[in-house]
Amino acid sequence: MYEGAVQDLIDELGRLPGVGPKSAQRIAFHVLAAESEDIGRLATALTVVKERVRFCVVCGNIAEADTCRICADPRRSDRILCVVEEPKDVVAIERTREFRGKYHVLGGAINPIDGVGPDDLRIRELMSRLSGAEVEEVILATDPNIEGEATATYLARMLRGMGLAVSRLASGLPVGGDLEYADEVTLGRAFEGRRRIDA
Amino acid sequence: MYEGAVQDLIDELGRLPGVGPKSAQRIAFHVLAAESEDIGRLATALTVVKERVRFCVVCGNIAEADTCRICADPRRSDRILCVVEEPKDVVAIERTREFRGKYHVLGGAINPIDGVGPDDLRIRELMSRLSGAEVEEVILATDPNIEGEATATYLARMLRGMGLAVSRLASGLPVGGDLEYADEVTLGRAFEGRRRIDA
Repeated sequence: MYEGAVQDLIDELGRLPGVGPKSAQRIAFHVLAAESEDIGRLATALTVVKERVRFCVVCGNIAEADTCRICADPRRSDRILCVVEEPKDVVAIERTREFRGKYHVLGGAINPIDGVGPDDLRIRELMSRLSGAEVEEVILATDPNIEGEATATYLARMLRGMGLAVSRLASGLPVGGDLEYADEVTLGRAFEGRRRIDA
Repeated sequence: MYEGAVQDLIDELGRLPGVGPKSAQRIAFHVLAAESEDIGRLATALTVVKERVRFCVVCGNIAEADTCRICADPRRSDRILCVVEEPKDVVAIERTREFRGKYHVLGGAINPIDGVGPDDLRIRELMSRLSGAEVEEVILATDPNIEGEATATYLARMLRGMGLAVSRLASGLPVGGDLEYADEVTLGRAFEGRRRIDA
């Protein structure tokens, strides 16, 4: 055990996800040795995030106002909606610069083992959003794992008969990857989704 | 890229040791979802450590006053001094409850590759401390690795002829370990330091 303040810091750091006791100790010693100014910036960043950042009332993405930057952007199309699990998925898709529509963030995926059911996700908000708006296409961009697939299947069933084009992101081999090292499910999907080349 | 405050937090977290971009993002989202009170406690712990914690003027250990708890404790013997690399080594040795003397924290080990020489460590402070005090025994408890051994050898040479008992912590098999999995250097040391059992 360390003297008061250092142990307090180790305890608080140890509550963060992915920070074990050893990492907490290492970070605490880094803090001790670092410039006060740098640590002040970190402490401020923590406080500012809690004060200023909330969730967009429209899409559930993180926002510093009532609506997020994307929902507030008039250049983005309201006709195509991309449904994702988490705000970090929005960031990943934005990086591709491929998508110019809007998002809906579910806040997770259906996961019976962790006790996450449809009612725990922002599905009701999605349905009321679709009923009123001019959306023509919904892209289900949940994760390509069991929970994400289950959520996409559930949503696809709910969206049936609403006159919407519903799609799912393509599965296949990652670009730059090595066929030999692809797992069999991915390789199977890559076969299933193969595209004809016009020679 | 995230909106302002979240990205600022990710940047600041990413400067901590052992926190990569993915971990920084994960921690930032944890912060977003956590109770404001909990994050407030973390921000305060960071600030308090920088305001209150310094290094003991006597031994170099972390302290919340001019001298640390151990140096200030009259029940601890001044006759036996344990030399360690870092404050965390003090904590590790204190946990054993085997040692009732005092410490001297070097602040690292001699490491030519990282450009750490004897002058970068608190060796001068050690020598002046030994010249004035009633120390009879010095235990060199630097790490059992190349840098720690080099530092211990260097110190042992400097302490020669001062009429002090100088010792090094025993190397050998870790208790609860498996002989089969011990590396050859450790096993070699265990042979070298074998003890006679009186049957």
